[in-house]
Amino acid sequence: METTAAGEQIPAELQAYRHTIDNLDAALIHILAERFRCTQQVGILKAHEGLPASDPEREARQIARLQELAQEAGLDPVFAEKFLKFIVAEVIRHHEEIAASQSQPS
Amino acid sequence: METTAAGEQIPAELQAYRHTIDNLDAALIHILAERFRCTQQVGILKAHEGLPASDPEREARQIARLQELAQEAGLDPVFAEKFLKFIVAEVIRHHEEIAASQSQPS
Repeated sequence: METTAAGEQIPAELQAYRHTIDNLDAALIHILAERFRCTQQVGILKAHEGLPASDPEREARQIARLQELAQEAGLDPVFAEKFLKFIVAEVIRHHEEIAASQSQPS
Repeated sequence: METTAAGEQIPAELQAYRHTIDNLDAALIHILAERFRCTQQVGILKAHEGLPASDPEREARQIARLQELAQEAGLDPVFAEKFLKFIVAEVIRHHEEIAASQSQPS
């Protein structure tokens, strides 16, 4: 049986759950990587078309949809909203960086 | 062509990206739902075994692993760390709630 640094034994059941969590986390990281690849393209397009980095109306629709999906999947809808806002904050930061870099004289 | 509330036209290319983002978000929500189902079981197990809600050593290993995966997938490793900490904070909140509810007289 594995032990912690403090010498506590880790139950086999906990190890099995952790294996599942690690697999799910790998999936999350890869989907997030693809999502940011996509929003990177959106940032370039928006900067090119002169569209604003954020779109509150689109964000409100996304939150409503994800809360509905969360409810069906058994995930706390409040957490789903917090999660989207966490991701969108990062996306907007990227979009502003892209817009700033494109407006600089080259 | 779709328009925003402000009457601006949304380019077809942006609509296509948004469709991809919506599909990826649905995948993220479902994986997160499954992750919390799993950590819920971990919380019950930890409360039962009297194990602490958080495990800084395990968390450090998870961060190192996810940063490596992020790097390979082209995701900002700093964001990967922020993301895991965001999820773990929610998990610890759940675990503390489970532990508190189990220590109350029934």
